[in-house]
Amino acid sequence: MPAKDPFQPLDDDARALARQLIEGASYGALAVLSPDTGAPSVTRIAVGTDPDGTLVTLVSTLATHTVALLTDPRCSLLIGEPGPKGDPLTHPRITLDCTAEFVDRNGPDHTALRDHYLTTHPKAKLYVDFADFSFVRFSVIRALLNGGFGKAFKLTDNDL
Amino acid sequence: MPAKDPFQPLDDDARALARQLIEGASYGALAVLSPDTGAPSVTRIAVGTDPDGTLVTLVSTLATHTVALLTDPRCSLLIGEPGPKGDPLTHPRITLDCTAEFVDRNGPDHTALRDHYLTTHPKAKLYVDFADFSFVRFSVIRALLNGGFGKAFKLTDNDL
Repeated sequence: MPAKDPFQPLDDDARALARQLIEGASYGALAVLSPDTGAPSVTRIAVGTDPDGTLVTLVSTLATHTVALLTDPRCSLLIGEPGPKGDPLTHPRITLDCTAEFVDRNGPDHTALRDHYLTTHPKAKLYVDFADFSFVRFSVIRALLNGGFGKAFKLTDNDL
Repeated sequence: MPAKDPFQPLDDDARALARQLIEGASYGALAVLSPDTGAPSVTRIAVGTDPDGTLVTLVSTLATHTVALLTDPRCSLLIGEPGPKGDPLTHPRITLDCTAEFVDRNGPDHTALRDHYLTTHPKAKLYVDFADFSFVRFSVIRALLNGGFGKAFKLTDNDL
């Protein structure tokens, strides 16, 4: 007997929920590969979007996860944080397996990205222009939406 | 000039905060290595502790992260979720780089672990005895405590 497939057929409601989670996110859990061991490691990061809706973060090169992404850009983001009430495992969340792309500070789209990010993360004004900070774009390879028990969906970049 | 070390000297307050985060956790973000690609992937899981305070989870073998842990037990947990108010990046959290150990359902300590877990996760009664569910213990290799900006500490299993 084949293993039971835990995934549901993808529909527009699932696609809309995925977009809603991404657009509403202010932070998430970022998994990277530790450069010294190749083992996974997960930390909290701030997230926002660039003007076209792509997920981004603003990181310091002093941070362990930034060193990891510079070594191997493969990473994964968990977005969709539970509120204070209810069961955290029934709260919708999405896993985004991604490639991280560092944004050139002197490139053509840095200023638009910087200004857009600051509208949603005004406190980042304090450090956004520090020499050791950099924006990173997350290019989604595949995604796993979990809308609660029995409501799991696989998505691709095109679905988002 | 050497890079600035972002870590503070470890003290008893930091050790106490780390224990508090672990003992107070009901869920966390689990990073694993995807068996097909070796890339990291992060999902939400329920967590609790066994009677001696070691972090555990209860997972289905249908879940993608369980298949990954059976293939490579190296994983990482992010514990310490922000409340509804305040800046999520100033909220204390801890990254625990771990090895996952599946608990034998017929082993000598399964019943004590099961009963202890159900005191903190009563809803798990609905599925704890299903054949495809298994407890996993997290053996901590190293930890990174982040108590907010400028309050980062490295810890080992002995500190916890």
